Amino acid sequence: MAKFRIAVHITPRKGLLDPQGNAVKDALHTLGFEPVKDVHVGRYIIIETDAYDAIAAEDNVTDMCRKLLANPVTEDFEIESAVPA
Amino acid sequence: MAKFRIAVHITPRKGLLDPQGNAVKDALHTLGFEPVKDVHVGRYIIIETDAYDAIAAEDNVTDMCRKLLANPVTEDFEIESAVPA
Repeated sequence: MAKFRIAVHITPRKGLLDPQGNAVKDALHTLGFEPVKDVHVGRYIIIETDAYDAIAAEDNVTDMCRKLLANPVTEDFEIESAVPA
Repeated sequence: MAKFRIAVHITPRKGLLDPQGNAVKDALHTLGFEPVKDVHVGRYIIIETDAYDAIAAEDNVTDMCRKLLANPVTEDFEIESAVPA
């Protein structure tokens, strides 16, 4: 077993309402950043886990995303390659 | 003026308490993912903004992080290179 670090990006699905992103956009406009056209707010999760190899670690994290980390109805997730931690 | 897309990672500063990460770790253990050693939960923000060039776009986003997006006391931020949107 080796230790791997895997980063996951979870973003609101394209085309769905992103109220948090809109709120940040409005706040940036208020602060004077008028050229901002669009903002999307997602989550960035870093997981350190033991696994036999990088493939197994990535498979495990995919499973975690499906079962807990991402909302399958409203969010997309993307897993970066596992790196030894 | 051209349109650029810039991604920002905001993470809890190393060494500070990360209650959200700990809660996710406990939940993963409960679901049977015992090999998970550590979890950090941050934010992933994608900004689409007009700017004269990529350097100006990145400078603007750094400014946004300092003024609104990141908490300078508890969080670190990292800006990816601007790409044409």
